[in-house]
Amino acid sequence: MSKSIFYHAGCSVCVNAEQELVNLISTEVEIVNLGEVKSRIPEAEKVGVNSVPALVTPNGNVMHINFGASIDDVK
Amino acid sequence: MSKSIFYHAGCSVCVNAEQELVNLISTEVEIVNLGEVKSRIPEAEKVGVNSVPALVTPNGNVMHINFGASIDDVK
Repeated sequence: MSKSIFYHAGCSVCVNAEQELVNLISTEVEIVNLGEVKSRIPEAEKVGVNSVPALVTPNGNVMHINFGASIDDVK
Repeated sequence: MSKSIFYHAGCSVCVNAEQELVNLISTEVEIVNLGEVKSRIPEAEKVGVNSVPALVTPNGNVMHINFGASIDDVK
């Protein structure tokens, strides 16, 4: 299948994530590897990234996706 | 700005999420509100959804995004 399914429950975190995902499909996504480009860690922390992987949307919302490593671990 | 930024650190969870996000942009996304359609909760649990919001990709990967509510709370 080539379909993704987004499960939510109408809560505010859910509704927000839904809207952001819908928006995402029509925006550009820049990919930054903080392990390689450590100079951008302060920028990521400033916008609220606590762990990676994380997606920061055009509205400034930080979506922490699963959990790979904390920012402190990346440092 | 209309750009999203995906921060990662090269870890396996990160690389996987990156690939899934890139794929997402070219796939269809079905939106399911488990609070309204409780009959689909077993289906969501079966594929590994522990909390909402969550995105299940075509490859069957479950991406838990932030945390809204546990599946038990939705029940």
